[in-house]
Amino acid sequence: MSDIPQDAIQCLDKGFIRLVDSMGGDDAIVQAARVSYGKGTRKVSEDKGLIRYLMRHRHTTPFEMVEFKFHAKMPIFVARQWVRHRTANINEYSLRYSEARDEFYIPEPEHILYQSKLNKQGRAGEVPQDLKKKVIGYFKEMSKKSYAIYAALSEAGISRELARAILPVNLYTEWYWKNDLHNILHFLSLRLDKHAQYEIRIYAEAMAKIIVEIVPIVYEAFEDYVLNGMRYSRVEQSLLSKHLPDRVIGDILEDLSYQITATLQKNKPRYNDELYRLYQKQGGSDSETDFLLKWTSGEIETGNVREMREFKSKLQELAG
Amino acid sequence: MSDIPQDAIQCLDKGFIRLVDSMGGDDAIVQAARVSYGKGTRKVSEDKGLIRYLMRHRHTTPFEMVEFKFHAKMPIFVARQWVRHRTANINEYSLRYSEARDEFYIPEPEHILYQSKLNKQGRAGEVPQDLKKKVIGYFKEMSKKSYAIYAALSEAGISRELARAILPVNLYTEWYWKNDLHNILHFLSLRLDKHAQYEIRIYAEAMAKIIVEIVPIVYEAFEDYVLNGMRYSRVEQSLLSKHLPDRVIGDILEDLSYQITATLQKNKPRYNDELYRLYQKQGGSDSETDFLLKWTSGEIETGNVREMREFKSKLQELAG
Amino acid sequence: MSDIPQDAIQCLDKGFIRLVDSMGGDDAIVQAARVSYGKGTRKVSEDKGLIRYLMRHRHTTPFEMVEFKFHAKMPIFVARQWVRHRTANINEYSLRYSEARDEFYIPEPEHILYQSKLNKQGRAGEVPQDLKKKVIGYFKEMSKKSYAIYAALSEAGISRELARAILPVNLYTEWYWKNDLHNILHFLSLRLDKHAQYEIRIYAEAMAKIIVEIVPIVYEAFEDYVLNGMRYSRVEQSLLSKHLPDRVIGDILEDLSYQITATLQKNKPRYNDELYRLYQKQGGSDSETDFLLKWTSGEIETGNVREMREFKSKLQELAG
Amino acid sequence: MSDIPQDAIQCLDKGFIRLVDSMGGDDAIVQAARVSYGKGTRKVSEDKGLIRYLMRHRHTTPFEMVEFKFHAKMPIFVARQWVRHRTANINEYSLRYSEARDEFYIPEPEHILYQSKLNKQGRAGEVPQDLKKKVIGYFKEMSKKSYAIYAALSEAGISRELARAILPVNLYTEWYWKNDLHNILHFLSLRLDKHAQYEIRIYAEAMAKIIVEIVPIVYEAFEDYVLNGMRYSRVEQSLLSKHLPDRVIGDILEDLSYQITATLQKNKPRYNDELYRLYQKQGGSDSETDFLLKWTSGEIETGNVREMREFKSKLQELAG
Repeated sequence: MSDIPQDAIQCLDKGFIRLVDSMGGDDAIVQAARVSYGKGTRKVSEDKGLIRYLMRHRHTTPFEMVEFKFHAKMPIFVARQWVRHRTANINEYSLRYSEARDEFYIPEPEHILYQSKLNKQGRAGEVPQDLKKKVIGYFKEMSKKSYAIYAALSEAGISRELARAILPVNLYTEWYWKNDLHNILHFLSLRLDKHAQYEIRIYAEAMAKIIVEIVPIVYEAFEDYVLNGMRYSRVEQSLLSKHLPDRVIGDILEDLSYQITATLQKNKPRYNDELYRLYQKQGGSDSETDFLLKWTSGEIETGNVREMREFKSKLQELAG
Repeated sequence: MSDIPQDAIQCLDKGFIRLVDSMGGDDAIVQAARVSYGKGTRKVSEDKGLIRYLMRHRHTTPFEMVEFKFHAKMPIFVARQWVRHRTANINEYSLRYSEARDEFYIPEPEHILYQSKLNKQGRAGEVPQDLKKKVIGYFKEMSKKSYAIYAALSEAGISRELARAILPVNLYTEWYWKNDLHNILHFLSLRLDKHAQYEIRIYAEAMAKIIVEIVPIVYEAFEDYVLNGMRYSRVEQSLLSKHLPDRVIGDILEDLSYQITATLQKNKPRYNDELYRLYQKQGGSDSETDFLLKWTSGEIETGNVREMREFKSKLQELAG
Repeated sequence: MSDIPQDAIQCLDKGFIRLVDSMGGDDAIVQAARVSYGKGTRKVSEDKGLIRYLMRHRHTTPFEMVEFKFHAKMPIFVARQWVRHRTANINEYSLRYSEARDEFYIPEPEHILYQSKLNKQGRAGEVPQDLKKKVIGYFKEMSKKSYAIYAALSEAGISRELARAILPVNLYTEWYWKNDLHNILHFLSLRLDKHAQYEIRIYAEAMAKIIVEIVPIVYEAFEDYVLNGMRYSRVEQSLLSKHLPDRVIGDILEDLSYQITATLQKNKPRYNDELYRLYQKQGGSDSETDFLLKWTSGEIETGNVREMREFKSKLQELAG
Repeated sequence: MSDIPQDAIQCLDKGFIRLVDSMGGDDAIVQAARVSYGKGTRKVSEDKGLIRYLMRHRHTTPFEMVEFKFHAKMPIFVARQWVRHRTANINEYSLRYSEARDEFYIPEPEHILYQSKLNKQGRAGEVPQDLKKKVIGYFKEMSKKSYAIYAALSEAGISRELARAILPVNLYTEWYWKNDLHNILHFLSLRLDKHAQYEIRIYAEAMAKIIVEIVPIVYEAFEDYVLNGMRYSRVEQSLLSKHLPDRVIGDILEDLSYQITATLQKNKPRYNDELYRLYQKQGGSDSETDFLLKWTSGEIETGNVREMREFKSKLQELAG
């Protein structure tokens, strides 16, 4: 088993994750997408826009063209959750071939919490100091005792594959884990979630820190659309829609008309006298005077035209 | 190649899809989920509620426990899109082993449309009758001609695997296709979409008709959360949130308090004098008089308590 | 956690495996294969021959058309090996949602062996009785102690997902496991092997007992070609070939000529005076007198013609 | 669609394959395997030996740690076979987004053959020159005609996704294809086979040429054990065993004793007077005089000790 290497991010008390190798970055996704779209996509000229478009519309295959290989060390109970992501390739330290090492996860006091009543699989509620101490004491005692017995069995020559059955799941294990970006993002969307167990979330956060360096544009789109997106069901939408005054939607649409105009102007500047017509084309309904007032206020944000147009059609659907 | 069997749903002019076999239904999903949740879930007593909960929270593994096997016949260009769903098991009619049959897809006039300008991969815009006739004529001519040459090569003894290279992708092929419910729903979410090509959407619609009979509860949840759900990005949410008057959210929350109360009352009736307190516990803020007025109006809908509570917390997040 | 159900096969001291559901049998494989081969395969008339042909030539897709769902209970260290077969669908008992039960694997004395010196991952060599007793004592002690602490933590209200980290990997877990026949056979080829750990081999043997009832023809072919087949490398073949007297290969080829003749005669009886010519056609070189002597001896075995012809060409290749 | 790039290997008349990117080589496999084996494997000191051991014993996971990304262009009917290898990630040129280009596969005369009578899916038997000319003429005519119609439909504004349905499967398509080494070797084992269709075998051969440069040791092992290995069924082994004189097996075993001794001596030289005892330990039964005669003959080959010992046990099993 490895000690924490210099290029690794420490996770929990004795674990870590580090990048071993990777293949491709933001540009590899664009490259792969352009094979699919061929000549036809010359207009989607900007790489960032293309990547965001792919993310927004669940065109997942280009994201599979980037590959990461990590080296990680974590408690067995974390590995047991992690291994359920089946597209990954794994080579794990084998306790049939090799001796277990005396390395066990002992929780920090601040992560020892009560069972949540609301969430069947969560923890919630502060535990008194003395109970925390007791828990830590138990963890240390069981780790020490089980390892001592394991070592004794091993010393006596008992087969490793049997002797290891006595070791608890807070024992550290270690593996190489290789996966493509699309499936890594899926892993992150589940394991960065606040409902994920703290002990695996720590690894997901470290993994995110590593990949954001290599695919910054993808990661930003992932945050905007997946991590911080929100899904409304049919019933929820109809409740929202029933109560939403037309005026509210009208206001947002008006805002979008300004923002689209400003973005188009930024991308390809026009003469000033064309701007009001451009704004009207985007569905804007203010008078020219009001338009000029707002235009010169310096308060109009810009964004991605395609994205804003898609939002307009969502709102129109919501308005019914 | 098979003619259209009696138990099949016809798709396009000469294709079909039919269910060959299936394993499990709504109950198999509940059964598998209960293994995971063990004793701990006795409270989630209702099967339908459990299935909806699993769908809402992307707990996908129980849906993998149900399996369907279809027999389908479709043009090669449709099969080429379909085969990209990689978790399926496939046995396709082989043109290396067997002779091609004289069966080609000829589009109906109403599906011959112009290339969409907006959507690089779509069709839009009515085509004049005479151009439609011309298109159909071309399809018929090429199908006939290519088959005649294929037959001639075959007659002359040329190897099948080579001779077939001359046949166009509107030739019908046929396969057995087996997949689990989770991955079938993913297939449907992509192929029922209005952006999917018409010729594969037809098969997706027929497939949906078949599975709704076997897993009606799952399919309803799929429609509510996935097909008819809508996802808002971080930016969209912040725009929505910025313009949304507090009053609107307050109104929806108030509505939900009534609906949750009514649902609780329906599930486990209480004495009338306990109702107002129950309503207050759900966050309701109307006076007792107003409460009674509304309660007796007969206009309060019921639903799933858990679902409504989750919506409440989404709204509170939106309100900031 | 479940006790051992009536329809289950017990495995180890407290585990089991049972069939929950299945889809298709030997006939489903033939049905799927015939879709691929279409009209072209009418001659491969016999189902058994077709299945054996598919197995021999690694045409694996038809075997994927049959699906099995098992319910199994096994120690965590067994589950950790099992889960590495990634095509399966799994729903496992969750120690985040539900309480652990006091069920631990304690090895039988006869399976407590020394670490093998030759095989890094195996056990070999009888252990004295008193050491065995000591090992069993340790297993019981650690199981009891760890469960007592787990129960105490649970009683004190500590979250389940954390408390379970103290439990050893000989704790029993339980799951639903669904997989297709092709991948189940792959699982069996690895886990029935004498190098597989005893504790998982037991489950593989029970699984084999269950599936042989449902796909008897497939299982026989699997035994003949995969389990009891042997692979020779290039170097091994050349050593074999170098030392193999031509006479030996000649003798086997001669035997095969008799066996093919007898099989053809069994499948479609001919007049006696045609038999010697049939035999010669199969490459037989005995005189007619010798032929008749041997033919009437009643010692000629029959088999599958296609299989025997394939062996002939392998031998001719070996002879160089 | 791309013309043939400089760094590509041409395949067929207008196709190609080229390496876009790769991650890891022979050393990455050793690295991953050593994580699994930990301290326990220090003795398997040599990388090449380890890789060959992994290949021989189907320890496939370390081979999954190496990844390749190819860019390839091939006829649709080739792509249709290729796509059935489901672990790969693919981005294909889309005829919904982009216009088809006028590039069709026209077979070379030497690959136009008759349908094989023996092999339902193969070609065999020379075709007369004039028939070849006729076939080529047909291919050219159909390609030209179908493209002319496609261009006309396109010109008239008919949607691309529909117009392309008229194009034959000898049209070239193009994709990025990414896969791990284990699954690439599986692809090669099927597509380098003499039963694979010529038009895909060409691509497999080019792919093999590319990967042998990056993983030479793996590829050599793959050739020795998989490509040039041979599998004997239970029945075949028993026939072989029945006819094999004990003397033959004895001779091979004797040879192996010499070879193992020579290899051990090469790896770690001993004094001359220890050699005969070393040879006896390996099972050698010649007298010391004969031993010395042979030893000094210079004819003893060396190899891999572990491999040779495994062969010895196979032979002993064969001898019964």
